[in-house]
Amino acid sequence: MNDTKQTFAPERIADNYLAAWNETDASKRSELVANLWTSDGTYLDPLMQGQGVSQIAHLIGAAQQQFAGLQFTRAGQAEQVGDHVRFSWHLSPAGGQPVAGGTDFCQLNETGLLQSVTGFIDFMPTAS
Amino acid sequence: MNDTKQTFAPERIADNYLAAWNETDASKRSELVANLWTSDGTYLDPLMQGQGVSQIAHLIGAAQQQFAGLQFTRAGQAEQVGDHVRFSWHLSPAGGQPVAGGTDFCQLNETGLLQSVTGFIDFMPTAS
Repeated sequence: MNDTKQTFAPERIADNYLAAWNETDASKRSELVANLWTSDGTYLDPLMQGQGVSQIAHLIGAAQQQFAGLQFTRAGQAEQVGDHVRFSWHLSPAGGQPVAGGTDFCQLNETGLLQSVTGFIDFMPTAS
Repeated sequence: MNDTKQTFAPERIADNYLAAWNETDASKRSELVANLWTSDGTYLDPLMQGQGVSQIAHLIGAAQQQFAGLQFTRAGQAEQVGDHVRFSWHLSPAGGQPVAGGTDFCQLNETGLLQSVTGFIDFMPTAS
């Protein structure tokens, strides 16, 4: 059996994480990122990667330029297995259908901070 | 951009992995596991965990007792992001509808062996 020692409130982690992705104020975004990741934590998806609060806060800001007017929301429940958490998200205009979605897979440290996040795309617009 | 150095044929990894889960001959199963995982590689899901070839081959054998007559098949494509791979699977009777499904997230070492696998359940029978 899995002798998980701690429960890290995976939905709170997911929601705080998506709040950081939605935060367009650079200073507030850096604070949200600093509260989520370890100081040497990493982010990796098919398009971007970064390590540390400054790089991760910056790459989120760069990504926001690509989806101006769209918001991230959690899709379904966040789940924890041991020190890993996964959750899915949608990227949508306010009140509209999602234009993209993905699943992020996180490894936590012993205090529940993000050590690494790997983002997989579930659906996205295809080039026409 | 993601400067992934290598492509590890994620579908081959997924299919070899599921072949190990389907292999009921203990000796062959150990060989399949040894060809997939690093010597100190780990497996973790909500019910089981193990480290190293012997433990992982054994836990697969123990799990097979729970799903005698059922087979794992890959559901959809396997995907790679950096040194991570994810794929989904179904557990089904021959020719029948799946009775359970999940998504496994793998971290690979630099040669493409499994360093860690974390298994999440997507659906399974509920207790009646």
